[in-house]
Amino acid sequence: MTDGQTLPVALDAMGGDRAPAAIVAGARDAVDEYGIQVVLVGPPELVGDTMGLELVACTEVIEMDDDPAQSVRRKKDSSLVRCAELVRDHKACAAVSAGNTGAAMAAALLRMGRLKGVSRPCIATPLPRPGATPVLLCDAGANAECTADMLVQFAQMASAHATSRFGVERPLVGLLSIGEEKSKGTPLVKETHERLNDASSGVAFFGNVEGRDLIGAPVDVVVTDGFTGNVALKTLEGALKFMFSTITSVIGTNDETRAAGDVLLAHLAPIAAELDPDSHGGAILLGVDGVCVISHGSSSQRAIKNAVHVAHDLAASGTVAALQAAISAS
Amino acid sequence: MTDGQTLPVALDAMGGDRAPAAIVAGARDAVDEYGIQVVLVGPPELVGDTMGLELVACTEVIEMDDDPAQSVRRKKDSSLVRCAELVRDHKACAAVSAGNTGAAMAAALLRMGRLKGVSRPCIATPLPRPGATPVLLCDAGANAECTADMLVQFAQMASAHATSRFGVERPLVGLLSIGEEKSKGTPLVKETHERLNDASSGVAFFGNVEGRDLIGAPVDVVVTDGFTGNVALKTLEGALKFMFSTITSVIGTNDETRAAGDVLLAHLAPIAAELDPDSHGGAILLGVDGVCVISHGSSSQRAIKNAVHVAHDLAASGTVAALQAAISAS
Repeated sequence: MTDGQTLPVALDAMGGDRAPAAIVAGARDAVDEYGIQVVLVGPPELVGDTMGLELVACTEVIEMDDDPAQSVRRKKDSSLVRCAELVRDHKACAAVSAGNTGAAMAAALLRMGRLKGVSRPCIATPLPRPGATPVLLCDAGANAECTADMLVQFAQMASAHATSRFGVERPLVGLLSIGEEKSKGTPLVKETHERLNDASSGVAFFGNVEGRDLIGAPVDVVVTDGFTGNVALKTLEGALKFMFSTITSVIGTNDETRAAGDVLLAHLAPIAAELDPDSHGGAILLGVDGVCVISHGSSSQRAIKNAVHVAHDLAASGTVAALQAAISAS
Repeated sequence: MTDGQTLPVALDAMGGDRAPAAIVAGARDAVDEYGIQVVLVGPPELVGDTMGLELVACTEVIEMDDDPAQSVRRKKDSSLVRCAELVRDHKACAAVSAGNTGAAMAAALLRMGRLKGVSRPCIATPLPRPGATPVLLCDAGANAECTADMLVQFAQMASAHATSRFGVERPLVGLLSIGEEKSKGTPLVKETHERLNDASSGVAFFGNVEGRDLIGAPVDVVVTDGFTGNVALKTLEGALKFMFSTITSVIGTNDETRAAGDVLLAHLAPIAAELDPDSHGGAILLGVDGVCVISHGSSSQRAIKNAVHVAHDLAASGTVAALQAAISAS
């Protein structure tokens, strides 16, 4: 992946609720603002205006509610599958999609392949941490069921990723549980706690963390199974969205509240921007042999621009090689 | 429990981070405001001033970090165990504690006993739903590991409880998962989905809900295992707390923001009050033969007052008999 800087980012033009318009526009912004090369992938008649960007034509689209594994097997000429193949064939440095998360994962796994020694890839989602680097939550939904072996590997991969993406030298790893004591949680959590606590894991283990620690966490990485991780992530997103919409609605009550809102928004806006998932460029699939960034299904033009930026930087910084080294060393 | 109105509520005077002061004061408020009889339970030398309330003396206290099962077995003369015994012996209509949740559950289970046919009790925590009755999240942490049988029973008990506590005639039940489709989730979730979807479950099944639905949910009851439920509950609490402290800190920036804050707080305060867990009087343990209300460890004087009020009302309304009927009918 040392040639990352010279290859374009492959972008699934048909992925996400706002595709293709927001996707194409976000790609255009990434090209214009960062000078990153982007190649769009999608059926020309559906993508429409490419805003002057290169388009790799395909004939199929995997829908948001398609079965992940089946759709990747059956829709071989879909934009998602073709994106992954461009990375495999060294025609792109990274793949980006805001489409069906499970299918993006399956496409990456089947086309790019797993890193050597990796049992299962996982999704690492950056959680905003105001005033500090984001916390990587993994697995955020790739594997509903996990073993302790898998969770230890997730911790190793996410640690390597926190270093290459956010520059955290020795990332602290927390294990999501229902109490700080090592006796708390499911048998899976208790076993994983012991394994991470052993020096042989190679990670800097902080101990258990709880749901309330996800925002402003004392750790750089939070490890959990994909079921719990996905529930926690969506709970957090739902709560923040609810609070923002509540504040917006209160501010809109009358002229007096609108004036008061203007005063406060000047201070709240930077915090809201930090909390906005669109700012962080999406989740990454850790453990596949290539960079695969998975953006939120509701990704805006700005989110796509940031996702392309992050994907390009990850490819250029050799994060896949760093992950492979971390796994091989363990 | 038809004699609930004539018996006092037994209150663990030593439970919670602010015990005994906030506990005793909250009890006093419940007596003064609602005319409810309360009996405090605790070691006299630790409880101190009982503010004129009756005290049942004991010699031991179960600490927040004591092992639940062990402490209940060993500390037979603890305030928590004695509270449960007062209910068992028909000397109190309900037990209330803001102490060690696991120990409160173990004490209730061992001293009050299980309802006939109940496999495992669960904790039902009311989640605020602005403008509507709270959503009951269960299991919120009693059983880290669950079977489909247990989850179906939780749904039945929580439905009966939503009716007797909040007057919801036919409560809608959602199953917490990582997607709306019944194919999503762990094997446990998929099996439970099928079971709840069958008319024989006796509950009004809505289908799967996601983490983002926990606030402002389209259902009256959300069923999940105690591990996921506890993580989701604490994630929600953490996010709301973070947002409130962020707003408070922004408002405190300078004189201009403080003035703007005063304007908005008049509108935000009622919403904040609805979202405040202290307003809802705590979680209830469903499936034991008696009313056991478990308040948040950080319960304030007001939270305790509300918890005593809720406990008394639940005893008076015969919620335990309603639960028994729901379980027996299934």
